[in-house]
Amino acid sequence: MDINLNADLGESFGAYRMGDDAAMMAIIGSANVACGFHGGDPTVMAETVRLAREAGVSIGAHPSFPDLQGFGRRAMHLDSDELAAIVVYQIGALMGMAQSQGIRVSHVKPHGAMNNMACENAAIATTIANAVRAVDPGLILLAPALSQLAQAGRAAGLKVADEVFADRAYSDDGNLMPRSRPGAVLATSEACLAHVLRMLDRGGIVSAGGRLLPTTFHSVCVHGDNAHAVATAAKLRDGLLAAGHRLRSLPEMLG
Amino acid sequence: MDINLNADLGESFGAYRMGDDAAMMAIIGSANVACGFHGGDPTVMAETVRLAREAGVSIGAHPSFPDLQGFGRRAMHLDSDELAAIVVYQIGALMGMAQSQGIRVSHVKPHGAMNNMACENAAIATTIANAVRAVDPGLILLAPALSQLAQAGRAAGLKVADEVFADRAYSDDGNLMPRSRPGAVLATSEACLAHVLRMLDRGGIVSAGGRLLPTTFHSVCVHGDNAHAVATAAKLRDGLLAAGHRLRSLPEMLG
Amino acid sequence: MDINLNADLGESFGAYRMGDDAAMMAIIGSANVACGFHGGDPTVMAETVRLAREAGVSIGAHPSFPDLQGFGRRAMHLDSDELAAIVVYQIGALMGMAQSQGIRVSHVKPHGAMNNMACENAAIATTIANAVRAVDPGLILLAPALSQLAQAGRAAGLKVADEVFADRAYSDDGNLMPRSRPGAVLATSEACLAHVLRMLDRGGIVSAGGRLLPTTFHSVCVHGDNAHAVATAAKLRDGLLAAGHRLRSLPEMLG
Amino acid sequence: MDINLNADLGESFGAYRMGDDAAMMAIIGSANVACGFHGGDPTVMAETVRLAREAGVSIGAHPSFPDLQGFGRRAMHLDSDELAAIVVYQIGALMGMAQSQGIRVSHVKPHGAMNNMACENAAIATTIANAVRAVDPGLILLAPALSQLAQAGRAAGLKVADEVFADRAYSDDGNLMPRSRPGAVLATSEACLAHVLRMLDRGGIVSAGGRLLPTTFHSVCVHGDNAHAVATAAKLRDGLLAAGHRLRSLPEMLG
Repeated sequence: MDINLNADLGESFGAYRMGDDAAMMAIIGSANVACGFHGGDPTVMAETVRLAREAGVSIGAHPSFPDLQGFGRRAMHLDSDELAAIVVYQIGALMGMAQSQGIRVSHVKPHGAMNNMACENAAIATTIANAVRAVDPGLILLAPALSQLAQAGRAAGLKVADEVFADRAYSDDGNLMPRSRPGAVLATSEACLAHVLRMLDRGGIVSAGGRLLPTTFHSVCVHGDNAHAVATAAKLRDGLLAAGHRLRSLPEMLG
Repeated sequence: MDINLNADLGESFGAYRMGDDAAMMAIIGSANVACGFHGGDPTVMAETVRLAREAGVSIGAHPSFPDLQGFGRRAMHLDSDELAAIVVYQIGALMGMAQSQGIRVSHVKPHGAMNNMACENAAIATTIANAVRAVDPGLILLAPALSQLAQAGRAAGLKVADEVFADRAYSDDGNLMPRSRPGAVLATSEACLAHVLRMLDRGGIVSAGGRLLPTTFHSVCVHGDNAHAVATAAKLRDGLLAAGHRLRSLPEMLG
Repeated sequence: MDINLNADLGESFGAYRMGDDAAMMAIIGSANVACGFHGGDPTVMAETVRLAREAGVSIGAHPSFPDLQGFGRRAMHLDSDELAAIVVYQIGALMGMAQSQGIRVSHVKPHGAMNNMACENAAIATTIANAVRAVDPGLILLAPALSQLAQAGRAAGLKVADEVFADRAYSDDGNLMPRSRPGAVLATSEACLAHVLRMLDRGGIVSAGGRLLPTTFHSVCVHGDNAHAVATAAKLRDGLLAAGHRLRSLPEMLG
Repeated sequence: MDINLNADLGESFGAYRMGDDAAMMAIIGSANVACGFHGGDPTVMAETVRLAREAGVSIGAHPSFPDLQGFGRRAMHLDSDELAAIVVYQIGALMGMAQSQGIRVSHVKPHGAMNNMACENAAIATTIANAVRAVDPGLILLAPALSQLAQAGRAAGLKVADEVFADRAYSDDGNLMPRSRPGAVLATSEACLAHVLRMLDRGGIVSAGGRLLPTTFHSVCVHGDNAHAVATAAKLRDGLLAAGHRLRSLPEMLG
């Protein structure tokens, strides 16, 4: 089966380093590139685009609320015009960067609190989906499977890539189990691989309680913000290949 | 003769207002739109693009050093990679905004200290010109006539629109007379109009000392940051029309 | 009777101007000085402190959520450690500025969304009151009469100055009537003066429905962000003096 | 002999970590605390003050140009009023933070490009020294030995702590050898220790060429931004103690 691995990259800022982008580029098929609102700056973006181009990794904009200090993880309540405008601005900024290096932005994945809010709130999801479509209706929206955001993307006529998380357990309702719960975060690379293979095998999200929530899914989100995470991502890739799956970029998945 | 009027617009930020953009849109042919680094924010940019589209005014990116507090007017010494990256980022951001409203960015004009430094420093000028071309070789570079920036733009293969200033006197070497000198800023709309008509008539910059520096020129920069400035711009437009000149957008001038 | 007039000043930022601080300093007894998080910058703060010192106006810190683009008017959900830290930081910054000019910061009044949230939420109010006390237990907390913030300030052992608004109608529960309601904002300076005189006379907040909510109050908040507002503030001052009241600074009210 | 070790701490920002502040607090006598302009944020500052208080380390403000992206390392040309205002603002912010935890700010050391410019430019040095004195004439100015800044501090009547660098070679004129030169940065902890002991022994800066530039000096700057740096700082401390020197805080050195 074809599957994509995606990761959030380009989140360094000025003198501050975050993650090992070069190592991750050798593992993933698609990179969500920070656009300067929660991390990243123009220099970091240019370097991230260069790394992606060299590795043959497809790129997407990873727009965030304007909250560098909070790393985009804090809820902000913007009116829909402003929300649309910041999404468009960030996609455009990455498009310029990509265009200047001869590659294209092929997807969009909201970051942090913006993503969380869009998964649960249909109005926010619709604002974002419409903003993405207004910039370019050919953009793929990368959204958690079964979320309001995935639904809004399809309603807007966008191609939607459904995403699951390698290292997170799901509740029976299909939502991520809150991090505060025991077992919410899978601790070992073996557990992550087993989790992903089980979902691929059964054709849907499998909750911690064993419930199957059938869904297509196209992409698995992996993390790369520390050495441990990079190793986990590499083992996941190797395990998927060993199980006979093919790793693809998002445009290859939904082209 | 064909001539363009351009102005810097979209420089409000959040609750802070600057200039009367709606009034200026009825006067000018091309707007230099702030991209969030010295003024402007995504909401303001979206509104400015909307006003330009409704008025049939062509738009350009107005990239700046990242210095909101200094309004982009303070010299910053960035290495060439970072300078290129911030130019690309800002052009891209405006392209996204324009694309989402169905129009195109047709030119680029650096702002404030970045523009001043690019006029005098060939290396900075070349970095900027190459960054513009990398994003889109069809973009027009709007640059002061006879400046290093205009020269670097042509060397990079860009279409260059040569600009003069309606309200500023020139030294014999073709540079703007420093504001500290008496007579450096023309005080009345009549003087501005006479200054521009004289330059159009004689085919070049005419210095305060009466020297002619022959140059093509395509555009006159007007200001709109207060009621007086808007009135001056309107009188300039009326005077140019009365003298038989035709007012054009930059793409019409250099298409 | 003794009464204080307070206003939010020093809210310009860089090239962006807001309000006529010099005119307001001649009217009010106490200034709430923006500290750089929603408006103001170090240069503006230094100038505002200078104006206050020359006018004999007492000053207070006007701390805000870190949201220049939203002018501090948007709800942010910070954990209590961060909320306390940003309040302390801003008070300290103004104290340094005041100390360098030989005057003292005598009060604190939260700005915008931070103030609104502190008026309704006891936990937020307590965090702020404790942060103020930790910096200097002699600081006066300027808080809307009957609010959670006023209550938390007293519980923390601070001197609290109860505030009413000259130009806003109150609901029967003592809260400000939402701006969306007709009559929520008093349109004329005469109506503002009558409103304030009535509350002074009856010893409490008088709601739009005529209900009296007895409370001490020490200060009336006036606005100065446009020419009309300055004129209204001046008429209010003149009317209070004509009615025999004495205008005081906050330290004089609660010393 | 009495000597102080100082280090730049509190330079993390939001989700971005820099250095191992807890480890360094166990080694040094005085911490230069970032104030939010090049690194640090109010939460980080509160935590840094807490660590310093617990370790019995004296603290100083480490003001910077407003340049988070450039980590305060880029030259900025501010007029003297603005330079003074940003220095005062940052000292005040740290004073508030310290006061809220019951300790005092005892020194000031400019950061990065501001420090470099103040070392070479008498006007900038004087503006900074006067700004420090205006806030509190009892503050110690920590400045490179033999610099314009040290001189301006003494001229302003401040107590000045002369500083040398453990890991940097000096030119014959007493300036730091540019990093681009071979040997400019001492590579081993042994070399750093020998360098410092030699300067203590001979009573002045000893250049790479062996020239002695006599000067008092009170403090040695060490770095803590990576594990290697922390180990070097620890060996330096141990070597100084083994050589019979006593380690002091800055207030103990200049009290």
